[in-house]
Amino acid sequence: MSTNPTVEVCFSPKLYGHKLTDGKFTTVVVDILRATTSICAAFDHGVKEIIPVSGLDEAREMKRNGYFVACERNGEIMEFADIGNSASDFLRDDLKGQIVAFSTTNGTKTINMARDAEQVLVGSFVNIQALADSLIEKKENVVIFCAAWKSLFNLEDSVFAGALAEMLLNHGFSTACDSVLGAVDLWRRAKPDLKTYLSKSSHRNRLNHLVSDEDFNYTVTLNSTKVIPVLVGDKLELMH
Amino acid sequence: MSTNPTVEVCFSPKLYGHKLTDGKFTTVVVDILRATTSICAAFDHGVKEIIPVSGLDEAREMKRNGYFVACERNGEIMEFADIGNSASDFLRDDLKGQIVAFSTTNGTKTINMARDAEQVLVGSFVNIQALADSLIEKKENVVIFCAAWKSLFNLEDSVFAGALAEMLLNHGFSTACDSVLGAVDLWRRAKPDLKTYLSKSSHRNRLNHLVSDEDFNYTVTLNSTKVIPVLVGDKLELMH
Repeated sequence: MSTNPTVEVCFSPKLYGHKLTDGKFTTVVVDILRATTSICAAFDHGVKEIIPVSGLDEAREMKRNGYFVACERNGEIMEFADIGNSASDFLRDDLKGQIVAFSTTNGTKTINMARDAEQVLVGSFVNIQALADSLIEKKENVVIFCAAWKSLFNLEDSVFAGALAEMLLNHGFSTACDSVLGAVDLWRRAKPDLKTYLSKSSHRNRLNHLVSDEDFNYTVTLNSTKVIPVLVGDKLELMH
Repeated sequence: MSTNPTVEVCFSPKLYGHKLTDGKFTTVVVDILRATTSICAAFDHGVKEIIPVSGLDEAREMKRNGYFVACERNGEIMEFADIGNSASDFLRDDLKGQIVAFSTTNGTKTINMARDAEQVLVGSFVNIQALADSLIEKKENVVIFCAAWKSLFNLEDSVFAGALAEMLLNHGFSTACDSVLGAVDLWRRAKPDLKTYLSKSSHRNRLNHLVSDEDFNYTVTLNSTKVIPVLVGDKLELMH
């Protein structure tokens, strides 16, 4: 194809049905606090597969069936689960090579909603450059899909969307999407001091007692890993 | 009440069902290009009442019943209507003291969706200071409701939302809404040259052949009027 690939941003699952893109596209799912950051951390630390699970009943069932289960709602670990959804929860040697069932308030539902895409990838600040390189090489239309917080626009996912969109626009992608223009401007505003900027987000404040400084520092540090989680059937795997 | 009133921003009709505010609140409906700007222009030029009409069938019926009808879809005047939805369409002496039935792609539907609020006001850059003064005096919770474009986030409504939200935050309002924080930052980015900033919006480009330079200049000029249109029953009237 000689036409430029396009990029658009979707700020909430409620808006995903109204996206501009048709034909083949890749969706990048984003839930910076915390699902997609933690999924990247898990793969970076050797987890083999992650099964995104939308509902609590299903997560409970998987625990009964012997799966290792990471599960939270509203930022707190569920009583039946092995771990919650902090990046640091996945830094365990016993998870290397293992399969994890993962269910969160917003993020894993969004991954499951994105299955209409040709390809579903998982993005966060920790793997943004590797992700951008892959998208730029593939030259397919891209939808950056923010998990949001209970359907409401959030700052951290939107700023990430702007950062990734800017990288694509700098490499031949085009856009007719105002969400991209807005997100890029928010990223430019945030970029000089990302941690301070995102500290003001409502969701960070909502999770303040639950997200450690160490986890937050990890979340806002770019390019600590080159993993690209990709949805294959019902599971997230490492892209090869 | 001793607690601060709150302000939140809703970027799309699809997100209005997920707002944070409960209890009494005022909703400010925004459709900068062009419904709410044109409604302010109409009142500023002496129109007595505007009936917001959601559907085309209803608009046609009102024309048959003898109403003066302003009606567009996708920026273009409908064949049965008297005028479209440009601000300059309302600068007619024969409309002074008259009632106009008004139906547009996004704006009038949004006004009709906002009826769950205690009070529904119409906002645009042309009446922003008068609107802010009224809201600050009233001290009721405020939801700034962007009509968006076919449910998608747009830049011009969002930047206006940021401008109005900043005025309220500077006068004792509080927020727990990331959409407010994002919108305020977009407004600060746009403020030094609002016209140039909004010229890049997708919707402005979409309407480029339909919105005259004169109309666009009017749209991005702050405080040319002090009218505050308010929904009373089925009609918009001037707030007294």
